[in-house]
Amino acid sequence: MKKKQHRPLRALFVGFGHVAQKMAAMLTVERKSFPGLKDLDLETIGILTRSRGVLVNPAGIDLAWALRVLGEKGAFSRQNQLSVRQAVEELDYDVLVELSTLNIAEKGEPAVSHVRTALNRKRHVVTANKGPAAFAYRELDRLARQNEVSFLFESTVMDGAPVFNLQRYSLRGCRVTGLSGILNTTTNFVISRLEQGESMASAVKTAQELGFAEADPALDIEGWDAAAKTAILANVFMGANITPLQVERQGISDLTAGEAGRALKNGRCLKLICRAWEEKGAVRARVGVEEISLRHAFAAVSGKGAALRIETDMMGPFWIVQEDPGLNDTAAGVLQDLLSVAASR
Amino acid sequence: MKKKQHRPLRALFVGFGHVAQKMAAMLTVERKSFPGLKDLDLETIGILTRSRGVLVNPAGIDLAWALRVLGEKGAFSRQNQLSVRQAVEELDYDVLVELSTLNIAEKGEPAVSHVRTALNRKRHVVTANKGPAAFAYRELDRLARQNEVSFLFESTVMDGAPVFNLQRYSLRGCRVTGLSGILNTTTNFVISRLEQGESMASAVKTAQELGFAEADPALDIEGWDAAAKTAILANVFMGANITPLQVERQGISDLTAGEAGRALKNGRCLKLICRAWEEKGAVRARVGVEEISLRHAFAAVSGKGAALRIETDMMGPFWIVQEDPGLNDTAAGVLQDLLSVAASR
Repeated sequence: MKKKQHRPLRALFVGFGHVAQKMAAMLTVERKSFPGLKDLDLETIGILTRSRGVLVNPAGIDLAWALRVLGEKGAFSRQNQLSVRQAVEELDYDVLVELSTLNIAEKGEPAVSHVRTALNRKRHVVTANKGPAAFAYRELDRLARQNEVSFLFESTVMDGAPVFNLQRYSLRGCRVTGLSGILNTTTNFVISRLEQGESMASAVKTAQELGFAEADPALDIEGWDAAAKTAILANVFMGANITPLQVERQGISDLTAGEAGRALKNGRCLKLICRAWEEKGAVRARVGVEEISLRHAFAAVSGKGAALRIETDMMGPFWIVQEDPGLNDTAAGVLQDLLSVAASR
Repeated sequence: MKKKQHRPLRALFVGFGHVAQKMAAMLTVERKSFPGLKDLDLETIGILTRSRGVLVNPAGIDLAWALRVLGEKGAFSRQNQLSVRQAVEELDYDVLVELSTLNIAEKGEPAVSHVRTALNRKRHVVTANKGPAAFAYRELDRLARQNEVSFLFESTVMDGAPVFNLQRYSLRGCRVTGLSGILNTTTNFVISRLEQGESMASAVKTAQELGFAEADPALDIEGWDAAAKTAILANVFMGANITPLQVERQGISDLTAGEAGRALKNGRCLKLICRAWEEKGAVRARVGVEEISLRHAFAAVSGKGAALRIETDMMGPFWIVQEDPGLNDTAAGVLQDLLSVAASR
């Protein structure tokens, strides 16, 4: 017991955007509101960002102070020239907290390499970046097992709502035979706005202002974010070995308020649906706009909500539904993974 | 590895109704359809029933044969006069599989005593009977921990859909602050029928014919089944120490097709909703008919469906939703618990 208390989990953060800042707040100034975090003794030894400088301190960085610096100056010191690659390779941390953003064009890099390096160094990895599990799940999962460390990514799909922890612990004996879901918040929100007569451009702008759209709207609108999530789910739940590039993909860029309105008038609605299924011994996956009945449960997933339907051999289908997630939900997913790592030590 | 294979999990069944028979079929004649059951090497050493006789064989009972006997003769031998109490106290089993039915008038007995006895004998317990966790969760959970055995009851709420396994493994760091749900299939089905103009008596009869109503309809209609589930959820998720008798309870016996129809006409619908919440430092719970908007997610839970909404401090609310569960779903919940026990050895 005592030993545990005296050995904090040393974390290296890569990326320090909205999610990381929310986490930092929950771990410091808001900590009293979250009694469940008492089991998480985290010591941050480095924060690497793309555009906001670098902080390194082997003796531990005060996250509340780091938040204040960011708030006041907009960036950490830019004097430290340590690259992310060097930091991941050389610093002494227990867990890499990879919070950089998905890069489809680079097939998940450089995050995939950071994760690989950390796992090879027998360091745990917790990531909210969809790249590593979407582009290299089999390899990284095997690496983690070989090195007896964790590779966790609960927040990549439906934030902190139980998805991968559920798969790991709550489906004993079940073979997952199919998945479907509404998993991209921005497109679902935008379609809701189109239904109300708003234009695509205006709806996307609102989503960005509200802070949940990806900085590059194409990631959402072209279906890449949904495809990455679908690939991760297919890989983890159904034993597939696919990347987002192998997910048949249709975005919502061609949709208009007129089409969305017409569907509604006919008692139906448009949704960007993710699917994975078995076909001829392989797992296939697709992201596309579907017109569904207003009485279908997917129709009830409005605005920022999300839903995942899981089909298994032993049980009838069940759903995980997220009502109205915010930034704290994503942060909570990362914190849950860090608590898992802490519990595994 | 080898040792594991040569040490089957020795099970004593108490109760051998629909769920147990479905399990027995899944473990034998249907086994090929469920590859995930390969890790479950179960040896049944006794089957005790209230009205269908007793089977005991320390060398293992062939479940396929037992099913055939039941099918052909309607009962096992009645010559064996062993009582359930004696069997639980004296037979040599690893896991008690308690599948008898909830008895509210007897405060969960005799199942509570059977479970207590087994745990005191350092035997695992898996039960689909709501009595033990609804009337004596704190005591039995403590006993299980003291004796380093499992006390599992996944199928008591929403069958095999992840509820208690989710609580155990997928909410790290989260404090559950409130729960609500539609958890009783029969009342939800009956209300759907009332909405279509059918009478209460006829709707209840249909539910019984379809096989999911409790034999004693009062358990469903008076809200006792829902109250038992609410008590279990409050105890497990929110640290409460309540029994179904402390759940404020209103059933649906007074409802009429007229009322259900009137609500629908006003764009609303009636649902039997279970709730648990914090109030002045204590956990309170209630089961009652509520009139909700047709646009509320609870409204989409129709027929045999079920839904549970979980509120936590770290994340926005999320839901577990069950679409159209059948007997195999309950059996799957018990099998998952048995797989957990097998994995823990």
